Amino acid sequence: MSNKASHQVIFMPSGRRGRVEEGESLLDAAQQMGVEIESICGGKLKCGKCKIRIEDGEFQKHKITSSADHVTPPSKEEVELLKKMGEHDYRLSCHAFVQNDALVYVPEEARAHKQVIRKSANERVIEIDPAIRQVYVEVEKAELGKHHGDWGRLQDALKKEWNLDNLSIDLPALQNLQANIRKGKWAVTVTLWHKEVIDVQPGYKEGIFGLAVDVGSTTVAAYLCDLRSGKILASESTMNPQVIYGEDLMSRVSYATSNIDGLEKMHAAIIKTINQLAKKAARQVDLRARNIHEAVFVGNTTMTHILLGIDPVELGSAPFALANRDSYDLKARDLGLKFHPSANVHVLASQAGHVGADNVGALLAETPYEQKQVTLLVDIGTNAEIVLGNQDWMFSASSPTGPAFEGAQITFGMRAAPGAIERVRIDPETLVGKFSVIGEEKWSDDWQTDADASLDQQPAHLASGICGSGIIEAVAEMFLHNIILASGRFNPDLTHELIQWEDGKGAYVLASAQQSATGNPILVTQDDVRNIQLGKAALYAGAKLLMSHAEVQSVDRILLAGAFGSFIDTKYAMILGLIPNCDLDQVVAVGNAAGDGARIALLNKDKRVEAQRIAHWVKYIETAIDPKFQDEFVTAIHIPHAVDIFPQLKNILPEKSAPKSNKADPKIRRRKVQKT
Amino acid sequence: MSNKASHQVIFMPSGRRGRVEEGESLLDAAQQMGVEIESICGGKLKCGKCKIRIEDGEFQKHKITSSADHVTPPSKEEVELLKKMGEHDYRLSCHAFVQNDALVYVPEEARAHKQVIRKSANERVIEIDPAIRQVYVEVEKAELGKHHGDWGRLQDALKKEWNLDNLSIDLPALQNLQANIRKGKWAVTVTLWHKEVIDVQPGYKEGIFGLAVDVGSTTVAAYLCDLRSGKILASESTMNPQVIYGEDLMSRVSYATSNIDGLEKMHAAIIKTINQLAKKAARQVDLRARNIHEAVFVGNTTMTHILLGIDPVELGSAPFALANRDSYDLKARDLGLKFHPSANVHVLASQAGHVGADNVGALLAETPYEQKQVTLLVDIGTNAEIVLGNQDWMFSASSPTGPAFEGAQITFGMRAAPGAIERVRIDPETLVGKFSVIGEEKWSDDWQTDADASLDQQPAHLASGICGSGIIEAVAEMFLHNIILASGRFNPDLTHELIQWEDGKGAYVLASAQQSATGNPILVTQDDVRNIQLGKAALYAGAKLLMSHAEVQSVDRILLAGAFGSFIDTKYAMILGLIPNCDLDQVVAVGNAAGDGARIALLNKDKRVEAQRIAHWVKYIETAIDPKFQDEFVTAIHIPHAVDIFPQLKNILPEKSAPKSNKADPKIRRRKVQKT
Repeated sequence: MSNKASHQVIFMPSGRRGRVEEGESLLDAAQQMGVEIESICGGKLKCGKCKIRIEDGEFQKHKITSSADHVTPPSKEEVELLKKMGEHDYRLSCHAFVQNDALVYVPEEARAHKQVIRKSANERVIEIDPAIRQVYVEVEKAELGKHHGDWGRLQDALKKEWNLDNLSIDLPALQNLQANIRKGKWAVTVTLWHKEVIDVQPGYKEGIFGLAVDVGSTTVAAYLCDLRSGKILASESTMNPQVIYGEDLMSRVSYATSNIDGLEKMHAAIIKTINQLAKKAARQVDLRARNIHEAVFVGNTTMTHILLGIDPVELGSAPFALANRDSYDLKARDLGLKFHPSANVHVLASQAGHVGADNVGALLAETPYEQKQVTLLVDIGTNAEIVLGNQDWMFSASSPTGPAFEGAQITFGMRAAPGAIERVRIDPETLVGKFSVIGEEKWSDDWQTDADASLDQQPAHLASGICGSGIIEAVAEMFLHNIILASGRFNPDLTHELIQWEDGKGAYVLASAQQSATGNPILVTQDDVRNIQLGKAALYAGAKLLMSHAEVQSVDRILLAGAFGSFIDTKYAMILGLIPNCDLDQVVAVGNAAGDGARIALLNKDKRVEAQRIAHWVKYIETAIDPKFQDEFVTAIHIPHAVDIFPQLKNILPEKSAPKSNKADPKIRRRKVQKT
Repeated sequence: MSNKASHQVIFMPSGRRGRVEEGESLLDAAQQMGVEIESICGGKLKCGKCKIRIEDGEFQKHKITSSADHVTPPSKEEVELLKKMGEHDYRLSCHAFVQNDALVYVPEEARAHKQVIRKSANERVIEIDPAIRQVYVEVEKAELGKHHGDWGRLQDALKKEWNLDNLSIDLPALQNLQANIRKGKWAVTVTLWHKEVIDVQPGYKEGIFGLAVDVGSTTVAAYLCDLRSGKILASESTMNPQVIYGEDLMSRVSYATSNIDGLEKMHAAIIKTINQLAKKAARQVDLRARNIHEAVFVGNTTMTHILLGIDPVELGSAPFALANRDSYDLKARDLGLKFHPSANVHVLASQAGHVGADNVGALLAETPYEQKQVTLLVDIGTNAEIVLGNQDWMFSASSPTGPAFEGAQITFGMRAAPGAIERVRIDPETLVGKFSVIGEEKWSDDWQTDADASLDQQPAHLASGICGSGIIEAVAEMFLHNIILASGRFNPDLTHELIQWEDGKGAYVLASAQQSATGNPILVTQDDVRNIQLGKAALYAGAKLLMSHAEVQSVDRILLAGAFGSFIDTKYAMILGLIPNCDLDQVVAVGNAAGDGARIALLNKDKRVEAQRIAHWVKYIETAIDPKFQDEFVTAIHIPHAVDIFPQLKNILPEKSAPKSNKADPKIRRRKVQKT
């Protein structure tokens, strides 16, 4: 027992209180009471993170008027550091020692484990607790007669100042250890990944960064994050370079199996691309890729297999066996990734052969497994991953939608990039389509494409092609205006200048030659309509299959994830019958939920464990062998389906009408004349 | 509680006994009683390792006459395997199920953890318990509806059949997992390093191999070992290629610091050399370097630093700080070593700045720390590492002997290779030297070097130079025959045809032009004698320093380790005063003890822990700053020293005599005439 006097200390805003021995620092007192105050330098007056304010006011029934009474006055060094920080009202809790009862306010920026908010269907609050941490230590000087070695001395310091033990050190860190300790004059900033020292920088350094990467079959997106604040510092995305080896997953699997260096080429391509994205993202904020100390990867199973250099052949046929379903940690350098030489990579767990880490990431971002409502989460890529469930049960499936929703296998398809047609409306009277393209706010009927039009009247981009959301709206509008029938076939009874026929197949002219970047009109063909029908039927059948397994008739909420899900007009998705019946205001686009999940796992290591637990818990339904899926699929090919089942659509949509005139808009005709 | 009958089973030769439930296999029974029987396949009738013999005889007072009574009869498959193995008296304990009392003999080859004997000063018995193990498992087939992944299924099998859990898998093993499991028809042989799966081979495979490497400043030696039997399968050694960057350690340290790519070059050179040694050793026994699953490295501190790519600059000046004193594990691939892609490397712990893993290896091999006797262990290389002690205390030091004992810095010096003069005797009457060279049994006075001599009369090798043991004997003989004085200077009063003078410095013609491979005579010069004097004084002073710290007047035993220690005639070492007073029959050459230590650590993982414990326990004495060392050194420069302190030498050695004639042997003269 100590004979020292003790005093009452209360920390605000948490309100935690306790008795503290006289002379103890407020930082130590806070730690004992479980009040987390951030500190990197551990009381060395380097970081200034642990700032607090001593409050006056009513306290234990005494009115305390002078704050100087509560704690020891600041030293010259503390005053200097606070001055440099521009903080005159604050003290540093590591150097404020208790000498009386005290009421202490901990400002938000000093509270360790800050929070980041994800703006989405659910507002998510994520505790920042990455696998990486950074600490500052002063190391005992080497001297004759002490044979401990620099690594031994560093371990002693980490044990003494941060209570860290059983540590290991990665080779590159060990290789530079002696030089950096001496450069820092026996003071270093140590970066740890779990129990492994991965970097030792000379002196006091601040800033740890991580990269969350979503490896999609079509698009690869990377988010550079500050692992202390949780903020996204830079985002970069690009086309997955593997598309040249096959547009959909199955053609990539077959490329890997039918070419001796197929896997090697696709692996090298994705690694190169990730290196480029990392470099670009880092450059945006004056960093280098080697400042990235950790990365979290998500992707569908084929993508994560190829990323890790694993032949995806087994995913190409039943029983679709994964090499590994669990999360996996490895050194970035073992993949040829040019992050920090000791950086680690965490690949999120997968669920089954065709529901991968990207879907698990989306679950982590949206947490339907914590909610009472029945949620249908749909991530539409080349395959659609579908999850249905709530806090009590959860089913998942993968549906082979094909790449049509991503603009592939569409005659004039393209990915969502500037110039892509993303919105479409068809005039019920004239059947002339108007549209908007990415990168240009004005709808096409406001464009001036004449050579003599002023520059600001001309569109920033002419139409280059049709992206996923554009083709959905085009097909839905074509159906609403009787250009195509419920069967998906072009209306044979309709003769119109904008409808061209070849070999018995119709095609609709959506953009004229003048509106097109290539100078050729952009058409929606019979084959395009077919591909959309096949895709939407697969998606719908998958959802219905899960509903049948779960024995539910309807869902409370539908979340559309992925780039496609973000841009699609949910109303049109319902017209076409992509998704089952649901209140339209409960259908929400949630953006790149997979990427958000990767980011969450990057910022909080416990979320990785949660992700794996959920991945194992969700019950996966194999669509490929379920006869119900085939039945649902065949039924779902037709279009009217949607309008018939969802009567509420009738109030929203324009009435279905036959065009009153089949003559083309004179403006279009004029342009055609100009062209010829 | 089980209702089954139980029977008494006794295992011989250990004599362990216990009651075993009816129907239990003898392998399981043995495991329960702590009798170790080897098994790779775990009862799958693949390996045949677990063979035992059921004995008849007196047992529990009953005479049992028919062995068929004790255990179930063999199945057809077991009989077939035993037949294939040529073992007709044996049973396989995994398939012999208890049905009565039984007396079981376990033959030596079936006892797990076999023993290897080290022939040295102490006969050492090493338990085989490497960090690597190999197990055979059958993996559940992948099927639709099971989403566990191949790695999950393999983990299940390893848990079920071998009770192994919390395992990880290294990337290269994961990359080939699916293909190998299928190639092996759902049966694989798994290689584990501690808890990490590092290799998965299809089907049943037998054989795990490791490499012990001693990285000396001058010579690099590699021993390829069978990790199951402990046997050395192949040895290879070569010159350390770093000698071109500096012959002694300090010049290599200075090369690393004064050249921007100095460390990189020396690192690359040693890695390349180790790769070559591994390849050559593996080829000797029809293996490839990629069959090496683990390696243990020893070497002095400068060598291990450069090996790991750590700048040795700090070892070049006080306080001689190590980057790391402890043992270190890393992936061989991170060093560019071309062993198995997932092979690990273990570097033994060091003691201090200049007493490295090689010395710790020597301690592990000789275990002076377990003995009552006071042992002086000396490993003479470019530096001499000296350890003095017993089970209660132990001191170590490093003495800067220079490379003279390795044949470097000697005018006609060379390393111990064919053609090197290794033994020298000088005729007291004529002062003519005779010698023997490595690779030729006949002494030089029996050589016929005339062109008309028959082939088998001619020596296999002429003399190419003088190696360490040769120079020691030459200098000692020169001293005994008054060619040089106690001060080391050539006797100015001696005029002799074999003694040449230039600039006031003498030189002794040891080999004539006819005996020399180059056609020029081989001389021992004044500078050579000086270098030997400096070296031996440093060594002696180091030993005396430790004796003074330990407060002992004499040592019970002297062990000479290293190539030099193996070839040196201990008598001559005493004449010159390399080592302190000791009974000559207690001075023993122990060969490459450092390499033996590496091998022991390779074969037994607990020895690595023991090595580190000892490395920390030995008290290191810094010669560089101890004034006693300087005093001892100066005193030890003179030669008579040895003969004066060790009176027993007088009985062994020929009496010191002045030559009766100073005329050269007519034979030598004749040769000289022929030459001119």
